[in-house]
Amino acid sequence: MEYQEYKEYRDYFKSLIEKKELKELKESVSELSNVVDIAEIIEDMEDKDMLLVFRMLPKDKSAEVFSYMELNDQLRIVNSITDKELSEIIDELYFDDRIDILEEMPANVVTKVLKGTPVNERKLINEFLRYPENSAGSLMTIEYVVLKPEMTVKEALDHIKEVGMDKETIYTCYVENEYKMLIGFVSLRTLVVSDESKKIKDIMIEDVVSVNTLEDQEEVADAFVKYGYIALPVVDGEYRLCGIITFDDIMDIVESEATEDFHKMAAINPSEDEYLDQTPWQLSKNRIPWLLILMISATFTGGIINRYNYILVEYMILNSFVPMMTDTGGNSGSQSSTIVIRALATGEIGLSDAMRVMFKEVKVGIICGGILSFVNFLRLIFIANIDRTIAVLVSITMFITVVLSKFLGAALPMLVKRMNLDPAIMASALITTIIDSVVLLIYFGLAASFLPL
Amino acid sequence: MEYQEYKEYRDYFKSLIEKKELKELKESVSELSNVVDIAEIIEDMEDKDMLLVFRMLPKDKSAEVFSYMELNDQLRIVNSITDKELSEIIDELYFDDRIDILEEMPANVVTKVLKGTPVNERKLINEFLRYPENSAGSLMTIEYVVLKPEMTVKEALDHIKEVGMDKETIYTCYVENEYKMLIGFVSLRTLVVSDESKKIKDIMIEDVVSVNTLEDQEEVADAFVKYGYIALPVVDGEYRLCGIITFDDIMDIVESEATEDFHKMAAINPSEDEYLDQTPWQLSKNRIPWLLILMISATFTGGIINRYNYILVEYMILNSFVPMMTDTGGNSGSQSSTIVIRALATGEIGLSDAMRVMFKEVKVGIICGGILSFVNFLRLIFIANIDRTIAVLVSITMFITVVLSKFLGAALPMLVKRMNLDPAIMASALITTIIDSVVLLIYFGLAASFLPL
Repeated sequence: MEYQEYKEYRDYFKSLIEKKELKELKESVSELSNVVDIAEIIEDMEDKDMLLVFRMLPKDKSAEVFSYMELNDQLRIVNSITDKELSEIIDELYFDDRIDILEEMPANVVTKVLKGTPVNERKLINEFLRYPENSAGSLMTIEYVVLKPEMTVKEALDHIKEVGMDKETIYTCYVENEYKMLIGFVSLRTLVVSDESKKIKDIMIEDVVSVNTLEDQEEVADAFVKYGYIALPVVDGEYRLCGIITFDDIMDIVESEATEDFHKMAAINPSEDEYLDQTPWQLSKNRIPWLLILMISATFTGGIINRYNYILVEYMILNSFVPMMTDTGGNSGSQSSTIVIRALATGEIGLSDAMRVMFKEVKVGIICGGILSFVNFLRLIFIANIDRTIAVLVSITMFITVVLSKFLGAALPMLVKRMNLDPAIMASALITTIIDSVVLLIYFGLAASFLPL
Repeated sequence: MEYQEYKEYRDYFKSLIEKKELKELKESVSELSNVVDIAEIIEDMEDKDMLLVFRMLPKDKSAEVFSYMELNDQLRIVNSITDKELSEIIDELYFDDRIDILEEMPANVVTKVLKGTPVNERKLINEFLRYPENSAGSLMTIEYVVLKPEMTVKEALDHIKEVGMDKETIYTCYVENEYKMLIGFVSLRTLVVSDESKKIKDIMIEDVVSVNTLEDQEEVADAFVKYGYIALPVVDGEYRLCGIITFDDIMDIVESEATEDFHKMAAINPSEDEYLDQTPWQLSKNRIPWLLILMISATFTGGIINRYNYILVEYMILNSFVPMMTDTGGNSGSQSSTIVIRALATGEIGLSDAMRVMFKEVKVGIICGGILSFVNFLRLIFIANIDRTIAVLVSITMFITVVLSKFLGAALPMLVKRMNLDPAIMASALITTIIDSVVLLIYFGLAASFLPL
């Protein structure tokens, strides 16, 4: 469904509510079958109307719709429905969605929900809530099929029918030995096309790719992108199966990890909330720290210019090339740093490639710097009619600037990564500030040596 | 497998080859079962060694390994093996992988491959090769299961066993009516847990989310992220099923579309090749155009400074605040533009939110600008001991700079999107250049009006 269709449904529902044609409303609502679409439609309705439509959904569907809504809108519902309705919805949710929602809800809601849960389950939920945020453990679900190596294909298929899970998590079934250790997996496809009398141990694949409960979601996402599986098993330190993670949860993560890097590289502290849900004050809080740091550090650049005022007084023309010099340095540096930071994030390059990358960037710097300073020299001589000595000085500085900024743009993120920090925090803004100072030192240093003062 | 393990395998294989212990090599190779890992291991070997190991793989496995290799390495293999070996590999590939590879291979290789293909298939391949690059049609595969509405569950399962596809593409089966139009889908899960005598038309879901053959891969990826399905059907203008796209192909796309935006925003023309595979010259070609444009446009900024030289001669101190002013403007502008460009790309905001977003960014600008100019004022008065009039002038300019750059940072990408262009080309570098000029005009404009000259 497209944006326009969502709006049409919303308007139509609204008009039915205004005209109090609730029977017709219920019919139209029940005609909608896709839970993702329903969630999108009702999210943008007013509290009262949203709740009305939400309550018209059959119980199992309302839980699914709920799980596809934004946290903000989930809270709007939680705050308006009765405790009984709430625990019914929570009960209907898949285990991983339940954990996700409990992780995000305010403490009083969590207590409310847990009160209505059987002791055993409460224990399990609490255990899951203890996994570090964004770890594999916090993403996994316990809804998966476990098979024993001695089962036959027929027994396995009957077992699947019996547990009858209604999620794609049954497409890969995991095989555990007597110590509950993960020893292999069988896809539902293999089960369906295999001879019914075959033993699981004879058709299972033993080379299982798994992740540890404590691994970060970014590494989990990398494994999914690399291997292209539907699900990955999550194991503890003793290689016992604790849960599985399915690809649909990973799609969002691949996207949101990229968004996080975009924000970090633009000198913004990342936030998990949606842009439109945040107040201007919340948004400002994520941006002020870096703006302050960068503003203060830019005063050093100003200090450098100040120190060379005696040159500027003689050669005021030099001043007008400063923006071109620092901007070009900043731009060529951030080209290199962006490429390196992103390639490190996707795993395209690793730290072991550091020398090769830096060497390559220097070569790129020589090519780009050569072309830029040549074009610049021609412009200064033939268009701007600048004194030849100054033109040479500016062009040489331009060349050094580009080569150096390419080198720094590649080297600094690698260095940060080497120190086990996130290279994305070497925001291009920060690299630009560093390059600015270096460029000005070279520019005025050369001017001081070569110009008659 | 981790990077270190790959290297160990490579070193071990190399030592075996050097010692000519080929029997042992073959055994170790056959012990490796994961095709993704094998591809990673052999990709970094020398031509001769890579080919030796590659030829030791069983035929079906070698085709799979081949499909997981980078284009560059695939070409190394294609250029060294015989025509017979090549067509054997191509025959073993899944249809979508075959199309992908043919799309990328040089024309002479394509001709070579097509020569060995039966007429019918050649026609089909040519048809697929005609879909625009990066369209849904160019991504889809023809390996899927079609069911008829009148089939029973048992008949459907027998049909699946018979066609016996060995890919996850069977997890969603599509139902066509007599006109070959897509009318519904059934998941393998539903088939397995349903009563064998039920009719497909009674268990199928009719509300199918599909994409059109000509839709861009970015929209296809959005649909996957939104709905979380394993596969999406691709239909033509008459709603006839043409193929399906599976989630594993989409994971890469979500990642590479983000990479493309990273590069565009850092003023780099995006390239499909891997960084390490490109020569410094190729890399430079993607970076030079924007560097040149930005260098030339920065001369305007220089021109503005030049025009106000008469102020600078009197108040040289003003010059040292220029970097702080333009940098802060650039940074706050690129914070806003990055957030807006990324939110537009992920669909978090749309053009219909334009007014709301710009209004919000202005508010953020007032908060950030207020804090920054206040801190700056204190620093100028108490630490730098600057004249109070100048301190007020600089602080007022700082405030206007931040508010304005937040507004421009949000508005310019929206404007570009409104003109149906890619907002990512409003590279933060370009926005910075625009903001630079505006800031300097305000700064010197205010100085000219308020300072005694």
